[in-house]
Order: sequence, then structure tokens, then C-alpha cells
Amino acid sequence: MQPTQRRLANAIRALSMDAVEAANSGHPGMPMGMADAATALFTRHLKYDPVDPHWPDRDRFVLSAGHGSMLIYSLLHLTGYARPTMDDIRNFRKLGSPCAGHPENFELAGVEATTGPLGQGLAMAVGMAIAERHLNAIYGDELVDHRTYVVAGDGCLMEGINHEAVGLAGHLKLGRLIVLWDDNKITIDGSTDLSRNEDVVARHAACGWHTVECDGLDSGKVSQAIEKAIADPRPSLIRCKTIIGYGAPNKQGTSATHGAALGAAEVEAARKELGLVDAAFTIPDDIVDAWRTAGARGARLRAAWQERLAKSKKRKEFEERLAGKCDDSWLKPHLDALIADPKPIATRKSSEMALEAINVAVPATIGGSADLTGSNNTKTKAQLPLDSANYGGRYVYYGIREFGMAAAMNGMALHGGVVPYGGTFMVFSDYCRPAIRLSALQQVQVIYVMTHDSIGLGEDGPTHQPIEHLQSLRAMPGLVVYRPADAVETAECWAAALADDKPSLLALTRQNLPLLRTEAAAENLSAKGAYRLRPASAARRVILIATGSEVEIAMKVADQLEGQGIGADVVSMPSTECFDAQSDAWRDDILPDVSNREILRVSIEAGTTFGWERYTGLHGLRIGIDRFGASAPIDDLYDYFGLTPDKITARVTAHMQKRDML
Amino acid sequence: MQPTQRRLANAIRALSMDAVEAANSGHPGMPMGMADAATALFTRHLKYDPVDPHWPDRDRFVLSAGHGSMLIYSLLHLTGYARPTMDDIRNFRKLGSPCAGHPENFELAGVEATTGPLGQGLAMAVGMAIAERHLNAIYGDELVDHRTYVVAGDGCLMEGINHEAVGLAGHLKLGRLIVLWDDNKITIDGSTDLSRNEDVVARHAACGWHTVECDGLDSGKVSQAIEKAIADPRPSLIRCKTIIGYGAPNKQGTSATHGAALGAAEVEAARKELGLVDAAFTIPDDIVDAWRTAGARGARLRAAWQERLAKSKKRKEFEERLAGKCDDSWLKPHLDALIADPKPIATRKSSEMALEAINVAVPATIGGSADLTGSNNTKTKAQLPLDSANYGGRYVYYGIREFGMAAAMNGMALHGGVVPYGGTFMVFSDYCRPAIRLSALQQVQVIYVMTHDSIGLGEDGPTHQPIEHLQSLRAMPGLVVYRPADAVETAECWAAALADDKPSLLALTRQNLPLLRTEAAAENLSAKGAYRLRPASAARRVILIATGSEVEIAMKVADQLEGQGIGADVVSMPSTECFDAQSDAWRDDILPDVSNREILRVSIEAGTTFGWERYTGLHGLRIGIDRFGASAPIDDLYDYFGLTPDKITARVTAHMQKRDML
Repeated sequence: MQPTQRRLANAIRALSMDAVEAANSGHPGMPMGMADAATALFTRHLKYDPVDPHWPDRDRFVLSAGHGSMLIYSLLHLTGYARPTMDDIRNFRKLGSPCAGHPENFELAGVEATTGPLGQGLAMAVGMAIAERHLNAIYGDELVDHRTYVVAGDGCLMEGINHEAVGLAGHLKLGRLIVLWDDNKITIDGSTDLSRNEDVVARHAACGWHTVECDGLDSGKVSQAIEKAIADPRPSLIRCKTIIGYGAPNKQGTSATHGAALGAAEVEAARKELGLVDAAFTIPDDIVDAWRTAGARGARLRAAWQERLAKSKKRKEFEERLAGKCDDSWLKPHLDALIADPKPIATRKSSEMALEAINVAVPATIGGSADLTGSNNTKTKAQLPLDSANYGGRYVYYGIREFGMAAAMNGMALHGGVVPYGGTFMVFSDYCRPAIRLSALQQVQVIYVMTHDSIGLGEDGPTHQPIEHLQSLRAMPGLVVYRPADAVETAECWAAALADDKPSLLALTRQNLPLLRTEAAAENLSAKGAYRLRPASAARRVILIATGSEVEIAMKVADQLEGQGIGADVVSMPSTECFDAQSDAWRDDILPDVSNREILRVSIEAGTTFGWERYTGLHGLRIGIDRFGASAPIDDLYDYFGLTPDKITARVTAHMQKRDML
Repeated sequence: MQPTQRRLANAIRALSMDAVEAANSGHPGMPMGMADAATALFTRHLKYDPVDPHWPDRDRFVLSAGHGSMLIYSLLHLTGYARPTMDDIRNFRKLGSPCAGHPENFELAGVEATTGPLGQGLAMAVGMAIAERHLNAIYGDELVDHRTYVVAGDGCLMEGINHEAVGLAGHLKLGRLIVLWDDNKITIDGSTDLSRNEDVVARHAACGWHTVECDGLDSGKVSQAIEKAIADPRPSLIRCKTIIGYGAPNKQGTSATHGAALGAAEVEAARKELGLVDAAFTIPDDIVDAWRTAGARGARLRAAWQERLAKSKKRKEFEERLAGKCDDSWLKPHLDALIADPKPIATRKSSEMALEAINVAVPATIGGSADLTGSNNTKTKAQLPLDSANYGGRYVYYGIREFGMAAAMNGMALHGGVVPYGGTFMVFSDYCRPAIRLSALQQVQVIYVMTHDSIGLGEDGPTHQPIEHLQSLRAMPGLVVYRPADAVETAECWAAALADDKPSLLALTRQNLPLLRTEAAAENLSAKGAYRLRPASAARRVILIATGSEVEIAMKVADQLEGQGIGADVVSMPSTECFDAQSDAWRDDILPDVSNREILRVSIEAGTTFGWERYTGLHGLRIGIDRFGASAPIDDLYDYFGLTPDKITARVTAHMQKRDML
């Protein structure tokens, strides 16, 4: 006799309780509440093959309520993935175990996204569903034909980002997105009645979603709901009515089960309640067999898919596409053309010009903007909208949803086969910062196009003028920030971003900048992070280190200093992170380790001076803006904030006099 | 004969067109589309008196769609506020004009909030409405009885934060909140159909809101809708169907009117269309008179209110409450008690202990948490929930809405009479970062309680462990970050935050820390930013600069160094911003300006080392974590990341050897 679905689900409950108990840390409530629903999904509906976790046409499963990580660890183990092993699970939340506190895609195959920051799993799933439809439009059902499933909790559905994700999915009619809502009426603080009186189902319906409700503790009912969701052409919300910590007889239904071990006595009581064996981390053979059989369901489907791929005319293209390498043959002719016809161009426009070449050479790119297309210059001429009428389009109108856009891009990159880039104003990097962090943590190739990168945007004023943003983003591990100084550097930065497998962020100007790199270079100098744009003529006493729009100013300061007989290098530093990663020899050549009394280092950037001591040293000079901006035309602002060549030169020479250098 | 409402509205259209034209920059579309609705509100419903813009019982008006700033500038000018003058309006978006690109509360009385970052105006209005009901519960209708009105655009209603704000307002049944939605079906990229298929009205209804629709170009119809909204006990959404740029005959209804000057020809055509006088910045006398009469409506109400206040027994308390000064008499006895009974306490718990004293001494505080009450330790024993059953409560269960919480706190502080504080995990400061920025820009007294401030939180892993957050927040102008090292510093930091009129952020540990400040001090040493916690015994060769939980470690490192005959100061630096603001004498005493070869400076903080060069110099040593964290118990993590006394001492001595200091 086959074990019942409930007995299969109880294996999840057992492992979840045991692992949290052993770690004395973790969240048993969610996995225990959603065990039946997850069992329905993983034994009957989800398309996957534990033997090949990276099978491109697998369904994606995202545990948006990431704190319930033992749910996914249990599922991967039980269905037969190589990892996590039972030992991995025993070491849940211990150093070195892939079973981290929250699921991390870089630790375990089968974990499709790193979750825990609430709402973002759902929003990344929207991106996965976009990528799926897009690739389906190109490669057809025979190669791309899968669904994206999400388990979301009340936290996911209260976070603002879910409004953006739900709105985007509804608008794009992503019918292959199916969200199982763990409706257990409990959050950390207690009943959801403490903070919410919303009709969640009605809200989703208002956003163009199909909705269905079921008893989340009855896997048969959940299966029926999933079948309805699959049948409906709209994205679906399945309201699974559950009880948090189900099976723990004295604690279930309370926030006590949310984020702490149940305790030995309650675990024992739960074992009795659920008919489990007594030993921890022990699953009866018939249950293991039944789970493994369920896990093997996908092998036949995958074999058939492999056969279709082998026969497909598009095989090579498809495989290359998924391998993710971006053609860089566009770069040299593009640079040659720029140098042949030097003219003042805003770097946001230079970026568009680079994209005109890139989007031809790299068919995987999908662009977009959070409702600032004309300002971010993210759309190239040939790009058609990606929408429900044409998923094959390559430009997403994300709407006024910066965070939703960024998270969707993470999901697209995680899905694979596409290279997403998207734009907003630099100041609104704050709105999507939690998703930028997940780009960096997950190490996905997402390219952020952040325009209007300083007070140079002018009249919109301090709410729209980045001050602290460049440094705040540079402080984030795993993200590379580029701030190019002209059209050549902009193209080089794009090339570096496309060559990387990590996220990149381009900070671009609204205002025009002259071409400073007027000669062809043997290598991508921007990828070096910093380089000597112009060496001192007179004996070097000053090194001017500038980024982006301030490099032009640094060149004029250098002219003025040289006019006074003071030799000044101009160092363009489009990326501090790239510079820090260079060899000692390169770094010592650009910024020699001599005292600031011998050679004064000066940083010039139209943003906070915080952190620039890393390059100037304590006794160097930092020119920047350590307050919020103001509303005025650009030239007035640069003058007001002391960022003109005259004013900077005066500060440099005054500083040199004070330090007895002159 | 009285001028028609339409003629009054056209004065707004005229000024908006003219100002944007003169600046050749700005957003005419919104003010022109919403002129009739705003006229209805400001001539018939809104309670205000231009003579006293700070009248505490005035209605609040928030232009959440802040790009339409000429709407509020026109209204303030026309109704008779002292500023903006017509000259101010002529200088719209020019340096020094209070008519900035986006409305700024610190530039003009009558601008209740700084808006432009979309969605946040609405979310701040929710906070204002909370503060109103709270003070009403204490002081009654005779002193506090006003409404909060919002003009929101499609951007505001697409941004994720609006979901949090709408949810919170619906849950708290803030019936005095009335939102006028400028439903013009246009965003910057074009039609809203490009990115949204949502039934906005149904979504609000699902969140417990009253909704009503009207022709937004008919001020009579808008008035009727406002009356219905006032009559309903729920928060109200008024859908005003409008045409963007209404009156510009060739451009209205298109995104061309959104964010650019109309151009001379179109302005001229609009003048004809609207029956305006030919000269720019000129309003006929009868129109000015009618506006001034409307503006004078409130004088009588204010006089009556002043009379009630004069007679009120609560007058003194009410006035002191609004003046905003916080009693600090709680501090000394609290510190004495801590020192009398030294024991290891997590600073999040020390914060709760301070709050137990503060919430008695300072009746204006309103606490809360984004669903982490027990973790953030933000609720004190006597605090009752602030909810629709008891607006007099002093604790808000904000739900899983970090951004909504932060923006609501901004609104509460802007309203006045309350001092909001609220908690979440430090890592989720990213989720509310755009609102923290507006706290700083607006210079409001909001206190952020950010707990679990490092890898010290342990098992939850890298998604929950702040790395770059401390430095990223310190980079923000106008925000003071405190990271106290023990219970005494925690109380001092609270005292400093309460004494300030700016926003503060407290970074607090999950883990226990010993009491390091075991003797009473003559002054608030934490408010100095940094101080010598323990001077070197042997000749000083090292200064250990540490913050928060790492000060304890620095003390042990100092022990070990002294054991090797190396004199080491321990400097506790709870606030870099406060330290930077001290006198040269104080700073030079703590960190003498001698070479790192003479005295080595070492920073120790369990976060990014980015920016610590400001205190260590280039040749100092920075101990920290320049990658993402990991999931493991705390002690394993501190060891893994090299943050133990043994490992740090070894690095210090190795560095000294390398630099020939030993």
C-alpha cells in the first residue's frame, strides 16, 4: 500500500522539527503548516529531476517565505537531490552546512533563489516567469514550457514590493506563475488582525489575478486548486488555509512556533500526534521510497526534452544562450566610431549608443525602465515591448516600480538565458536597494542603469540628487559600481559589465560631457578601475582623482595647476572596486605610496566625501558635497557647491600652502 | 459677480504654465489637470489660515505627486500665504527661491512634507492622520480635530510603499485621511496601459477604504465627492478623472505635458483656450480677491480654536507637547541603576530598559515595530496598542511594512506633538532607506531602532546580517547613527537622540554585552561621538577604535597587547558623526595626528571596512568584514571572520612588525 500524502507530509514536519531542535534556532512553524501543500506540489505537479537540478525546462520553485527553509531542504532531500544529505540537515544553520538559516541559491542546487528578505522571492519569481515566456516565444514549447511556483507568507504579501510584483504579473498576464499563500493568520507579533484588515484575495483579483481557495492541510484539495490555477490563463493566487506549526499539539496556531525551536517536550508530543517514529532525523523506508518515486517522476520528461533538444535546429543557439557568454565584438568598432567623431554627449546617451550596438550583438539582453525610458535612455530603436501580446519583445515597461523591476531582473538572471538591464534615477537606487543587495549576494548578472547621478540633474532638487548613493553602493560587497567619464569609458564599462557574471551598476549623467579619451587604447582601461588619463607635465606634486562628470573638471584644474608650475596627474577612476582588485604594481603606479606632503592626492566627485580617504589618505584633499543638494540650474549648482575648476584649484593651492608644499 | 470656480482654477493653470516656462524646467501637466480639484479643496473644504501656517489644528495637505509642485506654490500664493511671493514663483527652480523643483517643507510654511520620491507623501500623510487621532484621543475635539488630504498620482499608487500605507490606514480606520487620486491615465512612459491593468478602486476597497469617483475637472463634483469622503468613517480614495495638462489644447492628455515646459506657442494657445490674460505671472484682481477671500475662511475657525485653547486646562501641557522638548530627568537615575548592578545585556534589551524610563518621562513617544516587537524590544510594559479601538495607545503594530512604518513616522514627526520611534532588523534599514533619507532631508525627529546589527545575529545568515549598512547610513547627510557598546552607552545614545531635532538611528545587538562603563561620567560621553574608554598603561603605540559589540573585543585585545608591553588606548566610537562635529582639541586628543608608524590606529567593527580610513589613515589597520556573512552560531562566525581577541591581536602585532614598529 502506498503511504498516504499526509504521511509523506509528516516526513517534512519531522525533519523540520528535528533540524530546528538540533540547531536550537530556526522556524518550524511554516514548514509544518505548509507540509501538505508542498507535498501536493512536489509529488504531483512540479516538473523537476533531482538528477539534473539545472535542467533548463524544469519548473521553478521559490520559497518566498524563506525563513521556512527547512521546507525546501526537506523536499530536496526527500525527493532525492544529491544535497542536502541527512548530515547536511543535521547541521542545519551550522558553519559549512549548505542548509543555511535561509535558503541560498549558491549553496544548494534546487534552491532557485536566495530568500528571506520578505516579498522578494515572489518578485523574483515574476522575473523567472517573464524569462520563461520570453524564451518560449523564441524557442517554442518544445524547448521552453515550464511554470513558476511560489510559497509566500503573510509577510511577503504585506511588504510593499509584493504590490509591485503582483501588479507587474497581472499586467503581463503571467499565467504560468502560481503563488501558494500560506494563510495561517499568524505573524511574529501575533494574529494578523494586529496589523491587517485586507481582503488579500480581492486585492489580487483587482490586479488581474485568478484566485482560488483551499484547505492547505489537505493535499488533495491543494492539488485540485493547483489544477485550477494551471488551467487559468491569469497568474494565480492559491489561498491555502493552514495552521502554523501544524502537528505540535500545544503550540500550533500560535506565533510561538514561528521562529524558535519547539522544545523537547513539544517535539515528543508532536511525534505522537503525527504518528512519527521516535528517533530524530529518521524517516521510515516506505516513506523515503514513496518520496523518491515522486522525485523520479521528472526523469521521463527530462529524457523526452533532451531528445527534442538533440533534434532541434536551435540547439546550439539555445545552449550558448544559457551558457551566458556575451559577444564583445561590438566594442572596438563602437569605440573607433566615437573617437572618430568626438562630441559632447551625456553618459546616459552614450549608454544608449553603446546599447544600440550591444542589443544587436547580444540577443540575450532584455532592457527596461521604471517609467523613465526617455530619461534613462534604456530603449534602443529595434526593441519592441515585452508584453502579453508579444513576450518575444525585449523591452519591459516596468511602471513606477523600481524595487519590483530590480527583483524581477534578479529572477530573470536566475532563470538564465537572458541578461536583464534596467534603469531609474540614481537617487531611486534607494528604492530598489534591497534587491540590489540580493543581486550581489546571489552573484547574478544584472545591470543597473542609474542616470541623473549627481546634482548635475539640476532643477529637480535635493529629493532627486544623489549625494551618498555612490559611496553607499560601493560599500556593498559583490556589486561593481561604474561611473564613466565620457562615451569611451561608458562603452568600456558596459563591456566590463557584460563580461562579468556579477551585478554591475552604471552611474550616468544627465548633462553632456566632452570626449576625454580621444585615442584608442590597447585594453579596457575602465576595467582597470582607475588609470592615468593625463600625466603631469611639470614635476608631479598633485594627483587629481576624479570620476564621471568630474573628470572633465579635473582636467581643467590640472591645466590651471600646470599653469602655476604645479605638475598634476589626472586619474580617472570609473570603478573603485575594479581598482582595488588590481595588482600592487598597477595601484602603486597610479597612486604612489608617498606622503601627501610630497604629492598631494585630491579626490573630486559630486557626492559625499565619506570614504574617499581610502584614496586620498588623511592629509589629502577631498572635494565633494557633504550635505543635501538644492534646486537650481546645473551651472549654478556646481558653482554653489564649489565644484568649478577655479574654486577647486584655489582649494588645492591653499591646501598646499597650508601644508608648506609651495 | 463672483468668479466661477473654473476661473479660479485657471489661475493655478496660468501660474503653473508660466513658472515652468520661465524655468524651462518642471511639470505643468499635473497642476493643470488637478487645478479644479485643488480649487474645490482649498476654497471649500480645507481648514487653514495663511496668517498662521503652523496653527496646530489646521488640516494637513500633502502633495504626494510632488513633481506637480507648482500646484501647491500657486495655492499658497493665491490664498494669501506670506510666501511664496510672485517673485518667488518667477524664480521657480532657481537657486535661492523657496519654490524648489519639488516641494520642501523646510523652504515654505504650508508645505507640510517634502515630496517627490513617489508614494512617500501618501505614506507620510498616514502618519499625520495617526498623530491627529492620537492627540485627539488625549486632547479631545476642542483642541485636535482636523483632516489630512493628499493628492496622489499614478506613480504614488504604483510604488510598493502605497500598498503598505493603504494597508496601514485601512487597518487603523483612519477616516480623516482623504486621498484625491489624479487619474489621468498618463505616466512618463505614456499610457498607464503600458504597465498597469489594475482596478485601483477595487484594490483600495479590498483594503478597507471608502471609494468614490468623480469628474476631476468639475470642482463642484469634486466637492460632492469630498463631502462623501468626510461623511464616511473609513479612509477615502477619491478617483478624480482628469486630463493631464488640461487647457493646453494641443498637448493635453499626453505625456508631453508631464515633465517639460509647454513652449511659447502652446502656452499662448492655452491662454486663449482658458480665457487667460496675456501677460505671464499676472492674475486679474477679481480672481486674486476671490482666492484671498477663500483663504480667509479659516481665520474665524482659528480664532475660535485659540479661544478654546486659552480656556483649556490642558493648554500648558498641549503647548509644551507641541514645542517638542523631551524631559531628560530619567537619564541619571537610570545610569546609576545600571552601574550599581553591572551585568551582561544585549543593547536591544538595554534599549528596552531605557525606554521603560523614557516612556514615563516623555509622554510624546509613540513606539512600534515592523512585526518584530519581541526582537526589537521596542514595547514597554505600560504601552497599549494604538489601534482603531484606542487611538490613545502608544504602540503601533506596523505589520511587515518597514518602509510604510518609516514614512508614517516621518509624517507623525512632521505633524508634531509626538516623537515616533520604531524598530526592525538593521539589515532591513534597506527596505526603509528612502524614508530614512526623507527623515534626514526634512530634519525631523524620528528615532530608528535597528537591532541585530551585525553577524552577531548568528544563524539567520547573510540575508539578515548587515555588512555595509552602518557605513552606508553614516554616509547619509543629516542622519546620526549611534552604535552603543553597552547599557550605559545605549542610554546615553537614547538621551542624545531625544535631545536632537534630527533623525537618529540606533544600531543594537542581539547578543549580550558586558557593562564597560562602570563609573559615572560627568557628561554624556556617547554624545561626544568617541572617547577614550581606557588609556594605555604602557607607552602608547596603538589606538584601538571600536564600536558597539566590538568594544568588548577591543578591550581584550588591549589586554593582550599590554601583556606584550605594547601600550594600547581603547576608543569607543558610538557615533562617527558626533565625533566629526567635536572641537579640534577633542578630536586631536582622542586621535592624535601622528604617523601610523608612531602610533598605529586600528578600527574594529563587524561590518565593512569601507570608509574607516577616515579614522585609521591609509597605513592604519582596519578589522572588519568585506564580504557577505554566513549562517552559523555567533561564536563560530566571530571566529570565522577573524574577530576574536587572539586573531586581532595577532594581526595588530604582525602589522606593527611589517611596519618596523616593534
